[in-house]
Amino acid sequence: MKPENLDKYVIGLDYGTLSARAVLVCVGSGEVIAESVYPYPNGIYTNGIYPNRMHPVRMYPHETNSHRILDNLPETEMKLPVDFALQEIDDYVEVMYHTIGEVVEKSGCRPENVIGIGIDATSSTFLPVLANGEPLCKTERFRTNPHAWLKLWKHHGAQKEADCITELAKKRNEKFLMRCGGRVNAEWMLPKLMEIVRKAPDVYEMTDNFMEVSDYLVYLLTGEVTRCMCHAGYKLLWNEEDGYPSEDFLKELHPGLSNLKVKLKGREVQVGECAGRLTQEAARRMGLKAGTAVAASMIDAHVAVPSAGIDGSEKALMILGTSCCMLLCSEKLSYIQGISGCVKNAVLPGLYAYEAGQSAVGDLFDWFVKTSVPGSYEKEAADLGISVHTLLSEKAAHLAPGESGLIALDWWNGNRSCLADSKLSGMILGFTLRTKPEDIYRALLEATAFGMRAIFEEFEKGGIIAKELYACGGIVSKNPFMMQIYADILGKTILTSSTNQGSAFGASIYAAVAAGNDAGGYLSVGEAARAMGNIGEKKYDPIPCNVEAYNMLYKEYKILHNYFGSGGNEVMHRLK
Amino acid sequence: MKPENLDKYVIGLDYGTLSARAVLVCVGSGEVIAESVYPYPNGIYTNGIYPNRMHPVRMYPHETNSHRILDNLPETEMKLPVDFALQEIDDYVEVMYHTIGEVVEKSGCRPENVIGIGIDATSSTFLPVLANGEPLCKTERFRTNPHAWLKLWKHHGAQKEADCITELAKKRNEKFLMRCGGRVNAEWMLPKLMEIVRKAPDVYEMTDNFMEVSDYLVYLLTGEVTRCMCHAGYKLLWNEEDGYPSEDFLKELHPGLSNLKVKLKGREVQVGECAGRLTQEAARRMGLKAGTAVAASMIDAHVAVPSAGIDGSEKALMILGTSCCMLLCSEKLSYIQGISGCVKNAVLPGLYAYEAGQSAVGDLFDWFVKTSVPGSYEKEAADLGISVHTLLSEKAAHLAPGESGLIALDWWNGNRSCLADSKLSGMILGFTLRTKPEDIYRALLEATAFGMRAIFEEFEKGGIIAKELYACGGIVSKNPFMMQIYADILGKTILTSSTNQGSAFGASIYAAVAAGNDAGGYLSVGEAARAMGNIGEKKYDPIPCNVEAYNMLYKEYKILHNYFGSGGNEVMHRLK
Repeated sequence: MKPENLDKYVIGLDYGTLSARAVLVCVGSGEVIAESVYPYPNGIYTNGIYPNRMHPVRMYPHETNSHRILDNLPETEMKLPVDFALQEIDDYVEVMYHTIGEVVEKSGCRPENVIGIGIDATSSTFLPVLANGEPLCKTERFRTNPHAWLKLWKHHGAQKEADCITELAKKRNEKFLMRCGGRVNAEWMLPKLMEIVRKAPDVYEMTDNFMEVSDYLVYLLTGEVTRCMCHAGYKLLWNEEDGYPSEDFLKELHPGLSNLKVKLKGREVQVGECAGRLTQEAARRMGLKAGTAVAASMIDAHVAVPSAGIDGSEKALMILGTSCCMLLCSEKLSYIQGISGCVKNAVLPGLYAYEAGQSAVGDLFDWFVKTSVPGSYEKEAADLGISVHTLLSEKAAHLAPGESGLIALDWWNGNRSCLADSKLSGMILGFTLRTKPEDIYRALLEATAFGMRAIFEEFEKGGIIAKELYACGGIVSKNPFMMQIYADILGKTILTSSTNQGSAFGASIYAAVAAGNDAGGYLSVGEAARAMGNIGEKKYDPIPCNVEAYNMLYKEYKILHNYFGSGGNEVMHRLK
Repeated sequence: MKPENLDKYVIGLDYGTLSARAVLVCVGSGEVIAESVYPYPNGIYTNGIYPNRMHPVRMYPHETNSHRILDNLPETEMKLPVDFALQEIDDYVEVMYHTIGEVVEKSGCRPENVIGIGIDATSSTFLPVLANGEPLCKTERFRTNPHAWLKLWKHHGAQKEADCITELAKKRNEKFLMRCGGRVNAEWMLPKLMEIVRKAPDVYEMTDNFMEVSDYLVYLLTGEVTRCMCHAGYKLLWNEEDGYPSEDFLKELHPGLSNLKVKLKGREVQVGECAGRLTQEAARRMGLKAGTAVAASMIDAHVAVPSAGIDGSEKALMILGTSCCMLLCSEKLSYIQGISGCVKNAVLPGLYAYEAGQSAVGDLFDWFVKTSVPGSYEKEAADLGISVHTLLSEKAAHLAPGESGLIALDWWNGNRSCLADSKLSGMILGFTLRTKPEDIYRALLEATAFGMRAIFEEFEKGGIIAKELYACGGIVSKNPFMMQIYADILGKTILTSSTNQGSAFGASIYAAVAAGNDAGGYLSVGEAARAMGNIGEKKYDPIPCNVEAYNMLYKEYKILHNYFGSGGNEVMHRLK
């Protein structure tokens, strides 16, 4: 709370997988004044199985499979290749003007009191752009070429390319490999660029600039071409010390890529910086004032850190949704095996931001509820007017740790960190004829917490310590029973943060920093996080006897984790 | 079929856990003419959790948990100790006269044409008897002493004693240990006798003869005290070559047991022999002719062998019910690790009968259907008018072997053979977010078949080969899909036998042998099996491409089997 800023407002805009959300927030109090949600009119063009979430997307309540999912591009009947995921750039633009305009109108605040706009998006979600700023996919020549389109983070067409990059980097012992946990993910920008240069060399040739969609939207608002280096750090193997992968490396990867840096244009900016100011035209369309600060673009998951009130190092945030994303800032650079990335300045200026994650958390529990709970439980929950999740939690709460005799490996969608192996699969052990659904449900909750503990352990090996634990995300408020298990298994108090507005709220915090102190914003992300951030009242302290019991069980988890995950038995790779 | 015997009949009487069944069968054709089922009026006196089946009991349709299960004996309010399972001997007697009388009456056949009676029962189910033939539990002095009562096979009060016997036998390197797979089961007679001598020395002292209940019933019918050595072989560590465990061993086990052999009275007989002939009194009560042959008593599961038409060695019978019992006769004596027993003459005269088993088969599938199938599947099955089992089988039939990516260890009730470790537990591996209930159901079916294959492999190591495979039991006719999986995984044709009348039919075959050729019966069990036995028309041939796929999966099963079952990781022992 900063009383002198109570009459100033910022706007945060978050681009999810199927819709975007804008919020208008009071700079002084962090209170959300207005909100607007808008789904992408054209949904996703994909031929893959939806949902296949390798990314911690927080689904909004209205985002369901009923959204438009098309398996061919407009104006062509050619089916998209398997695992393609493309979107219409016009949808992003339309959504921007609509939602920002709406929150301004709803709030009724005066345009001159809106001091900043911040935009975050999934990443790497990018598009090829011509020198005049026109997206390639909008030109007649490239309209029907899928590689000219906006590729969504979850486009998985570049798996082979990702493997190639990992292999070559290993062969050449490239230093950058250690910052990204030892392997390159197909969802990142570099493999997707390699896919384009290999499969659509004309698209690659004609492109002037490959832009993250969030940088592109900043460009539309400000006329400035910027490149926020948080994306480059996580998705392009860039780092502050060594820059991008060397030309030599890129050339060996594919001769066409040797000039890659030329196609990554834009003034390099960091999160919290002001990327530019609203043009007359953009201001007019949204009812705002020209010259309003627009923050450097951000990655959706990362903006949750200041949202939760985290203002410095050694405080880990677990974003628990369908999957789990863990973010931890530190002054130290260390090489941690199997993380998703480590980039300086990407979350809090001056600090290295480490990202790691688990591929299935809420998805795993949902899978269980949908496929493995008998009708009698469904009926019991309905009769009580509670969800099946709640019913199972209530029943499982009567068990002591270890009482069920079950233990599970939480790899239903592979293991993201720290084994970084998408071919691993789930396992449950300890079944008897007396095993009940709530026993299994509890074992699955425990397994994800054990997985989290294994991640923290890997960080500790590298000297990166999480002294304080924070949790946010959809499950946190819904399942206090699960949060207690997390506290017991991780052996630390967990502070929770409600993030009803998702990443949009986080984006608004960066907007207040981009606006700057003089305009009524803040000097630093840390200061803004303390003033606006949302530390929940609810906290979970570990229960000593449970901690002890789980220490024993965790040993068993770790033995199984290493046996199946680190070469003891490659059965999960050999099975389909 | 033997036309000269078409006007002769035999009666088989089978004592199950909760009821008994009698059949009257045509000796020449094997046709069942009449049948009678009768539950024990007093059910089971137990304090244990029911059902806890370590034994291949075939439940009849009307046998459910609604049967009387009492947790204290009559005339006392003392609760029974946990895991006790006692029964009322009068129930057995009443049932015998009632059911035999009823089949005779129903069939309308002339008493002189009924040439033999055979009785089988669960084993070891026995009672202490006084010298005058009176059961100890019927005397005023011992009426309220649970150790004086008939102890059912599933009485588990002697686990400590069983462990003592195993330990001492290992220490002394007793030869008999190798015949019973290396460990003594609490359900056998010797540990139960040790329990009596330790906990109720007065009962032990006063007992003249500890009789298997089936021998006792033969005594009631004939006045002859016999002891069929098939029980002694499997449940008292007796064998033809060395007899009972030595006095020296028994003395070291417990001084009171040194005179054990004195308390195991009765003329020693073998299956298929005539134990005696109906007394006037017994004949009168049942409407039969005095002097009718009564066969030596039998063990319930074993009589299924001739029932299925098996007449000789190297033909394995799998009795697939809630659990699985496998019987295989051979001319050779070999020591097989972890089997349930190997006894000469116990099933087919002149051959060693090997018994092995799996603790959970039908029970495992039932567990899955009850605990892990969503309401939508239950509804779909109901709408189609089929069972959930059938629905899951139909859905799972669309999968190719290995397609689900799942593999399981079938140890939901421990592993009986050949690891002989009741503390092992179930495991499923290979889950993804796409895993469906039918995937898991199929993996569980496959796991039990893999478990069966591991048993046959252990036999092969000992040079005992199953050249032909037969299957009977409740699941066989209900689940052809499962039988095909068994054929594919075992890599052999499986002949099936319908055994609607359960063991009672098998007991009647031995009755025809006991009656003898001259009376219109048969010379040998083999001959009777060929004439009366019931080889089903349905057979399952292995499908070559499935066999190949399963050979690969079996390798994975075996690696996991050995890792978790043979000391690679003792986690299943360490978990509760």
